[in-house]
Order: sequence, then C-alpha cells, then structure tokens
Amino acid sequence: MATPEREYVLAHKNDLLHDLDEWLRIPGISAQPDYHGDVHKSADWFAEAARKAGFPTVEIWPTDGLPAVYAEWPSDNEDAPTVLVYGHHDVQPVDPLELWHTDPFSPTVDGELLRARGASDDKGQLLFHLLGLRAHLAATGRTSPAVTLKFLIEGEEESGSPNFEKLLDERRARLDCDVVVITDTGMIAEDVPSTVTGMRGLAVCDVRFHGPDLDLHSGVFGGAIPNPATAVARLAAALHDEDGRVQVPGFYDDVLELTEDERDLFAKVPVDDAEFLKFAQSRATAGERGFSTLERVGARPTAEVNGIGGGYQGAGGKTIVPSDAFVKLSFRLVANQDPRKIIASVEKFVSDHTPEGIDSSMSWEGEGVAPCIVPIGTPAYNALTEAISTAFDGLPVLPTREGGSGPEAALQQKVGMPLVFLGVGLPDDQIHAPNEKVNLPMLYRGAEAAALLWSNFARLGKAGLRET
Amino acid sequence: MATPEREYVLAHKNDLLHDLDEWLRIPGISAQPDYHGDVHKSADWFAEAARKAGFPTVEIWPTDGLPAVYAEWPSDNEDAPTVLVYGHHDVQPVDPLELWHTDPFSPTVDGELLRARGASDDKGQLLFHLLGLRAHLAATGRTSPAVTLKFLIEGEEESGSPNFEKLLDERRARLDCDVVVITDTGMIAEDVPSTVTGMRGLAVCDVRFHGPDLDLHSGVFGGAIPNPATAVARLAAALHDEDGRVQVPGFYDDVLELTEDERDLFAKVPVDDAEFLKFAQSRATAGERGFSTLERVGARPTAEVNGIGGGYQGAGGKTIVPSDAFVKLSFRLVANQDPRKIIASVEKFVSDHTPEGIDSSMSWEGEGVAPCIVPIGTPAYNALTEAISTAFDGLPVLPTREGGSGPEAALQQKVGMPLVFLGVGLPDDQIHAPNEKVNLPMLYRGAEAAALLWSNFARLGKAGLRET
Repeated sequence: MATPEREYVLAHKNDLLHDLDEWLRIPGISAQPDYHGDVHKSADWFAEAARKAGFPTVEIWPTDGLPAVYAEWPSDNEDAPTVLVYGHHDVQPVDPLELWHTDPFSPTVDGELLRARGASDDKGQLLFHLLGLRAHLAATGRTSPAVTLKFLIEGEEESGSPNFEKLLDERRARLDCDVVVITDTGMIAEDVPSTVTGMRGLAVCDVRFHGPDLDLHSGVFGGAIPNPATAVARLAAALHDEDGRVQVPGFYDDVLELTEDERDLFAKVPVDDAEFLKFAQSRATAGERGFSTLERVGARPTAEVNGIGGGYQGAGGKTIVPSDAFVKLSFRLVANQDPRKIIASVEKFVSDHTPEGIDSSMSWEGEGVAPCIVPIGTPAYNALTEAISTAFDGLPVLPTREGGSGPEAALQQKVGMPLVFLGVGLPDDQIHAPNEKVNLPMLYRGAEAAALLWSNFARLGKAGLRET
Repeated sequence: MATPEREYVLAHKNDLLHDLDEWLRIPGISAQPDYHGDVHKSADWFAEAARKAGFPTVEIWPTDGLPAVYAEWPSDNEDAPTVLVYGHHDVQPVDPLELWHTDPFSPTVDGELLRARGASDDKGQLLFHLLGLRAHLAATGRTSPAVTLKFLIEGEEESGSPNFEKLLDERRARLDCDVVVITDTGMIAEDVPSTVTGMRGLAVCDVRFHGPDLDLHSGVFGGAIPNPATAVARLAAALHDEDGRVQVPGFYDDVLELTEDERDLFAKVPVDDAEFLKFAQSRATAGERGFSTLERVGARPTAEVNGIGGGYQGAGGKTIVPSDAFVKLSFRLVANQDPRKIIASVEKFVSDHTPEGIDSSMSWEGEGVAPCIVPIGTPAYNALTEAISTAFDGLPVLPTREGGSGPEAALQQKVGMPLVFLGVGLPDDQIHAPNEKVNLPMLYRGAEAAALLWSNFARLGKAGLRET
C-alpha cells in the first residue's frame, strides 16, 4: 500500500519534470570559465525554486569562485532537530560533444529516462528534495517541515570544491545542525536500494628524483652512476608487496577494520567482478589479497601510481642515463586514517628509498582530504534506511562505500554531527560522461524517502539523532 | 734516442698541419642533411690525400647513404700480411654553436693544441696515418709499405653507421686481411699510453604495458585494477638486485670474466672516481658490487633504464589508474655474450613480469650489436703495444675498455681476423661537444707508432699475426 507521501509525489511528478526541464537547460559548468555566467544563473534558478517551494530564507552565498545557494525553513516545532542537506548545482563539462546522442542541455524524456547533463549529478536529485518536501507537508498536514531544514547547495563541486572549506568557516554560525544529509551519490541498482557508508580520504603527491646534472651516455657512464629512472621505479615497485599490501610503514596502523557484520553486508551487494571489469574496460582485477573488489575500492586504503616519467620519451631508443625522473602517487584513505600522518609516513618512505647520489623532492596537494565514515546502526542511519526501504517497497537497504573523495569529510568535520547519504543515482547514469541520464522512478523514490526521512528524524529528536 | 720514424715525423709535421687545416674546413656532418654535400667533399679530399701519399688504388665507395673511401697499397713483398685500417671521415654536429670559442670549421692552433670539429674525431687521427706511412717508407728505405695496407674510411660513423654492414657485405671480397687496426679511440692521458681491448655490445628495447582501455578514476577503480605504471616500475625495479647484479636469468652465463691479470692492469689505470664523477656531473657512483668504476663501464654487462613513462605527466596530480605505460631499456654486453640470446632472455623476463590483466609488447632496435674483444697478449696485440710504447719513450701501454658500442664488432665478425686499436685521442678532447681539440704531440706519436707498427706486423708475418 502506497504511503501518502508516495501518492503525493506520483500525483505531482509533472512538476518535477517541468522544473528539471527548466534548470537542466542552464549549462552551469564550473570547470569552464566560459560557462561561469551560467553557474550564476543556475544558482539564481535554484534559489527561486526554493522560494517557490516555501523556504522563507533563501540566500546566494558568494565565494572567491562561484556561488552557493543557502535555503532555510525552520520547523514550527522549536524542539525539532535541524537537518543540513548538501548538494551541488554546477555540472560537469560535456566534451566530447560528438558522443552525445541528444543535446546535453536540451533535456529529453525517453520512457522513464531523462537525458541531459546534470540530470543525475546533481540537479535531478536536488529537485526530488523540493518535491519530497512538498509531499512531506501534504502527507503530514503541516505548514512547516517536521524538522528545521537547511539546504547548502554548492556551485564548485565539479571543479574540486576549491572554496568550500573557506565558505564553511565563514558561514559556520549559520550551519548548526543535528544531522547532515548528503545528496550526491547513488545506489547499486534500481531494485537494490543502498546507502553510502563511507568515502575515502586522499593524499596526492609528486616525487622528483634528480641524478646526474645532465643526461649521460649510457655506454660511457651506464652501470656506474645511479639512475633516477631506476630509482623511481624501485620506489613505485616498493609501494606494494606481492599480496597488494601497501608497504609504507605504519600505513595501516589507524585503519578501522571492517567488522564481520559489515563484510557480510558487503558480500550481499550484487556487484560482480565481470560487471566491474566491463565498466573498467580491464581484463583482470587486482589488489589487496583477502578482500573483494567492493571492499578494495570502498573500504581499504590504497596506493596508486598516477603517473611516472623520466628520460627518453620519443620513438625508438636512446642510450642515456637520464638526469631526472618523477612519479605521481595518490593514497586513498579510510576511517580512521589521518592524512597528515600518512603524508609524514610517505615522506619518510620516499627518503628511505632515495639512493645515494640521487636528490629527491616531494610536493603534496594541500594537506590531504580526510576520510568520511558513516557508522552503521546509529539512530540516524536507521532512520535513513527505514525511509529508503519504505520508498522501495520494503526492500532491505545495503551499505556501500564510495572509493572517491569529496567535500563531505570537510563538512562532517566542520559541523561535527552525524552524516548520512541519501542519493538515488545509478551506476549507468553516465555522470561525468556523454549521455548522462537519470531514471525518473528513482527520483520519485528519492522524493518519497526524503519526505519520510524528515518525519523519522523528527521522531528521534535532537538527542536521539546524535546518538552513536 | 729518437727512432728514424720519429725524426721523419717531427721533420714533416708541418705537412700534417697543412693537411689538417684543409680537411677540417670541410663541415662533413653526416647527421645533418644540409651538410651531406660536404660529406661527399670530405670523402673526395681524403681520397686525393691518399693518392698524394702514394696509394696506387683509391676508390670512393658509395652506399645508400654517404660514401666511404677505400685506399689500397700492396706491399712489394707478396708474403707480407695485409692490414685493414678502419676510421671515419664524417664529423659530429657543432650545436650549440654559441659555446664554441673559435669557429669549429676554422682550425686554430694554440700552442700544441689544434681546435676544430673533427680534429681528434677522427680526421686528425687519419692524417697521422698518412704521415706515419711516409715515415715508415722513409725510415725503412722502402718504396712500398712492409705490409699490404687497406684503408676503409667510413662516412656515416657519427650517424650510427646505418649502411656499414651492407657495405661490408658488398665489398667483402676486397677486404681480406690478416689483422684489423681501428683508429677512432683514445688513450688515458698524454703520459699514459693505452689501447682499447674491448667495446661493449648493445641490445635496446622498448616495453609497452597496456592495462585498462582508458584512464580510470582512481577513487572508483584504484586498488582493484592492475596498474600498468606500477607494472613497468616493478619490471624496471626487478632488473637489478641490491648488489647491482642484473636479474635477467642467464644474463651472465656467457660472460668472459676478467682474469686476475686483467684486473691488475685495470687497477693501474690512473682514473679515479672523483674525476669520473666530475665528468658525469653526478654525486655518487653506483653499480655492480665488487667491481671498480672502470670495470663497471668497460668490462661488465649492464642493464639501464633509458626512459620510463605512463599516466599523468602534467603539473600537480591527477587521480587516475593509467591505461598505458612504457619503459625503454638498454643492455650493454661484454665478451662472449650473444645479443640474440640476451634478447630472448629479456623477452622471457618481461613476460614473467607482466601481471594478469596487463598486455605487454616489446620492440628491439635491430638484432643488437655484438661485443668486440681484443685478447691481451696475442702476437698482434704485442706488436701494437710495442710500437706504441716505443713512440711514448718506452712507457708501458695499459689496456682499457670502451663502454660504448660501434661498428667494430661487425667489422671483426665480417673479416674474422684479430683486431687492435691504435688511437691517440685524449679524454678532454671534447669530441661530440663544443671546442673539440687535439693535442698535436699525440698525433706525432700516433704517426710514429703507425710507422713502427707496419714493420712489427711484417716481422710477424701472416701466420704469426693470426695466432691467438
């Protein structure tokens, strides 16, 4: 039997389609300066939509780059908890344009699919929230939401959120809340509802090895002078042992290992290696022995060689001992690893692997990104999975991990509150690729889950929500 | 007491200077097509000089590239052995021109130095032969040399001798001889006469590793897909053990180890690591444990990474698992290593180091270059060192090894006769660099040594020369 929330959503889905059609026509590509005017228009559009939905407070928050939108709707119950919803209104670039079957900024409905850049990532998901909020009010007969809602919708997520932490610091006083809901992720499949329970942290570096001050003739000097290309190769090779374990001393010291229960849940996720390999266009999996592919990309820390170079790069051969070589490394971190400790360990590892006669230098991208972890089984988590499960006709909700790294960890750290993920993208949504689409029924289910979630959170109250 | 040969040389040294001044003005740079007309002129000049010196047969031998000069002067003693002298008349490019202190093609005498491109490599050395031959005739009172002389003077040595083996095959019948004399090398110092006793062979390859068919997001796929940049790093790292020994199975199987006597002679060579490091602009030596620098570059086989690449090459970081990576390797070989066996061993090694899910491909530069070895103590070797020693006032002649690889091995293989090196360049001659010079007294000593050598070879006779 359908919930009143679902009945409202399905009765008003054309409103969602209408809004999508308008907003998706604005090419707000944050990574391309030519489109920055459109990113401003996109922010203005969402601000106006939030006002129309009933938010009494809607503000454009400028940054040193592109603007965020902030919308706030206090509950008339002054004891109600406050929920901070995060998403983003900017979109990915569309190149190569010739691979699109339809115009990326002319939304096209094809049965239950809607194709356009941003349809899934992230405009479609933000619009399910606006419809879900209306359903929440209609189904509960309220004139304000059962929880105080704060929406923080960033405009630079697709270009690395360069000004997000500063924005959080500037606006910290406005962002007090009891729980954070992230809406920018996906589920396993249309009939396999799931929620993200962790995103990995990240530390990225560039290591330079300098040997002789000029490229040397390998006939005259080869075999007697330390070779920086060999040295970077030995460094990169030393990163892993034969079992795929990272060999940087102390690397795993702080890792919060998966519990048996978590591993059991991971094992139930119906993603098989064949499908993963198809997405990866690879012929084999690899990685840390003793863990599944899903665990490797979601729940285990990794070290990856992103680039390597040095010496002769042209066609054929050139018999030199090169003067310089480099390797670019990135480390994905999981709970409770601290990027600063990892950076220090890697610096020592590089130093220990720098041969005599070679000078090494390293540079890091900032101070790294902390991992983000959602404990399973907390009241906030249970409230979320109950809402999602209801929206999916009672199906169980599986926990997943995202291998990537985003601004969520910063948000979690700044506000210091529990965080959950409500996102309804699908693995084949082609986000960041040509022909992005969204499954419209997923948006309807997302709207219903959001509508139910505000009631669930209200029942828990402030104290209940913060329990861990 | 000076030999008659030396008296003649010193009495006629102005002829040598006059010839040098003419020939060095011809910019016969074989590597640069703009100068190919000059390479032809250079061949014609030497052919005319050989005729003037008395050679009854002088021919220009065309190739698919640039011409060689062939000159033959039969001894009137029909039992006399035949000596094939190898050198080259082309020169290196002169860039960067702004680093020259004098015009590279306006020979400039400065005390006992003569500066010009080709002064030492190789025109000066070929001209000491012409003066030496006149001294030989004058001192012995002969009207033809005591041995039959054949000069084969290549025109493409400085651009890799691409047509030399074909020329040898085409002209093989004309090249019968009893001993080969290579004149294109140097000595340790002005007061440390020496002769080359080996040049290393060479095998050069490019290894390509292909992983996923596209660069992957390391957050989504990292740690679960085989990384070709890691794979090339592990391959390159596996080439050597901690003692600098090459780990390709069978690599050392055929190596003719240095004898204790040879090692004693190497140890006497007054080249120290500090000087070597200054030339190399490096801060440390490295290499196979248990061998000196001179042994490492001259007498030991090596594996060197000449280039490595893959994945992101730009500034900063990019969190990908790259699709492709490569490594360029070269192997220097010593007697009695067979390049074909080494190539097969390396192919197996690469195959054994190709992880599942990675495709490897390899390409080799031709079939490799065989090493060239001059046994110490043969009659031909002793005849050579006796002639050099006399020209250097009785100083002992030390054996050295050249780390590089040249056309000598092909010549040795094609004619199948003993080979010795008579060259008087010095380490600071700046060959292949700006401000090339030659020490004129070294040319005079070379002329005297050549003059004496023909008499020494004649005394040994055909059978004596070929003894090993």
